[in-house]
Amino acid sequence: MTAPQVFADWMKRVQSTMEDALASFLPGERELPARLHEAMRYAALDGGKRVRPLLVFAAGELFDAQQGALERAAAAVEMIHAYSLVHDDMPCMDDDALRRGKPTVHVKYDDATALLVGDSLQAQAFLVLSDDTDTDVDAARKLAMIRLLAHAAGSVGMCGGQAIDLASVGVTLSLGELERMHQLKTGALLRASVLLGALSGKALSAAEESALDAYAKAIGLAFQVVDDVLDATADSTTLGKTAGKDAADNKPTYVSILGLDESRQLAEKLRNDAHRALASFGDKAQRLRELADLIVQRKA
Amino acid sequence: MTAPQVFADWMKRVQSTMEDALASFLPGERELPARLHEAMRYAALDGGKRVRPLLVFAAGELFDAQQGALERAAAAVEMIHAYSLVHDDMPCMDDDALRRGKPTVHVKYDDATALLVGDSLQAQAFLVLSDDTDTDVDAARKLAMIRLLAHAAGSVGMCGGQAIDLASVGVTLSLGELERMHQLKTGALLRASVLLGALSGKALSAAEESALDAYAKAIGLAFQVVDDVLDATADSTTLGKTAGKDAADNKPTYVSILGLDESRQLAEKLRNDAHRALASFGDKAQRLRELADLIVQRKA
Repeated sequence: MTAPQVFADWMKRVQSTMEDALASFLPGERELPARLHEAMRYAALDGGKRVRPLLVFAAGELFDAQQGALERAAAAVEMIHAYSLVHDDMPCMDDDALRRGKPTVHVKYDDATALLVGDSLQAQAFLVLSDDTDTDVDAARKLAMIRLLAHAAGSVGMCGGQAIDLASVGVTLSLGELERMHQLKTGALLRASVLLGALSGKALSAAEESALDAYAKAIGLAFQVVDDVLDATADSTTLGKTAGKDAADNKPTYVSILGLDESRQLAEKLRNDAHRALASFGDKAQRLRELADLIVQRKA
Repeated sequence: MTAPQVFADWMKRVQSTMEDALASFLPGERELPARLHEAMRYAALDGGKRVRPLLVFAAGELFDAQQGALERAAAAVEMIHAYSLVHDDMPCMDDDALRRGKPTVHVKYDDATALLVGDSLQAQAFLVLSDDTDTDVDAARKLAMIRLLAHAAGSVGMCGGQAIDLASVGVTLSLGELERMHQLKTGALLRASVLLGALSGKALSAAEESALDAYAKAIGLAFQVVDDVLDATADSTTLGKTAGKDAADNKPTYVSILGLDESRQLAEKLRNDAHRALASFGDKAQRLRELADLIVQRKA
């Protein structure tokens, strides 16, 4: 098989593994309260490219992390991501009716259920990460992983980024301000994915953490730049969500500040930065390199 | 000093300690994003009777838990409680404008900020509980505490209880169904408070956990029965929240099912159950006994 085929197979395997892992780490849809559990599964299963789990697994390869530990770490990150989408789509936030080509949770169920689905998924993420049945990761390292995820999810991470995003509607942001907003809103959880994957294998040296940080920062920004490019150029069917929404909502984007061409150049520069950051890890970082390429070259 | 005076002093000391602890465990209100952090502090500080922290500290006395560990455990539980109030008050849930005598978070700020305040407080709770600066509690026990809190907060705990509560508007519940709803909605977090306090001191034997469970179950139900009695008999100024709201919302309550007199008798029976459950702990459980009395005999 060619390298792209091997990578494509690896992605499919991780995505399929994660579907099973999420299904088993979420309460069953017949477990009471059944409607809430059905809605939690609707929000988290059968959806998305699983970019964060892919990063967890790719980073886990650096330090030969065990499958069970990676599944828990990836499921926890993905539950945080899924909850953020559910809350973000609610009428009091982005008021979006379509997500991954399906009705959003508050449309399919109701606003109150969407609120509780998000709240419950966040709790479930920490439940999954604090599990003690998997003994590949010692307790001190598990605590470090929980701290990392809580920090990335909270007010100086993802939620903080959303607060800044809300406050930026109709405001002219500088490129630096836009970058800081996205570093929190999207970047914090992508960084957590990379570090949780690596920590699933072993405690990190300062040099290792710093290299992974540089990689995560580059792909985090690249992810957002490409999102903005796609939002401005692709259609809703391809994206599986409402296209052109940021512009319609008068939200600042890389495209609105830099224009399309320069945004594309920036994404390519960030892809190179990501590769450079991985130099010290050698061949073991192949999947992380391929993910950087995927993030920049994706069409949806 | 008489026993009631000693107890009242102890309560004031814990409440004051907790105000300081929460203030220091929350991001500063000048830290960016400042508006979100200001709103988080508005939601969590200067409010309530701090019943859950009192339970944490009282249970901590059983096993000589250290002050630092108790402050973290109590702050984590209180942050979960505070977030649940913020979300519960939102227009898509109970749509309440008054809480602890002050405008609710979505009224004072806006709905989107209230959503993010709740989300951030939940993450902050797990951040505080997973901290590693306090070494009185070993990593394995900290993980057990995190599991306990995540379980109590999530879909088979507090959030699940709220989902059942939402589904029960206008529905005739049996006493058993009402009890199960409250065991999740309020009872799960009160139980977690007692167990987290005890775990701050040492790992629990099965007998100790079972005795504390029986105590927590009794006070959890008593708490709700008394809440329903107060909702039906007290005024909004005394309660610091809108009185008579459950009846107006056509929600089932102990008073609507049992009537006032029988509800009061049930509360008194539960108080006795709580005392009985503590028999094996001797004098060290004095504060837990006094808290059971307080919960049943409170006027607001």
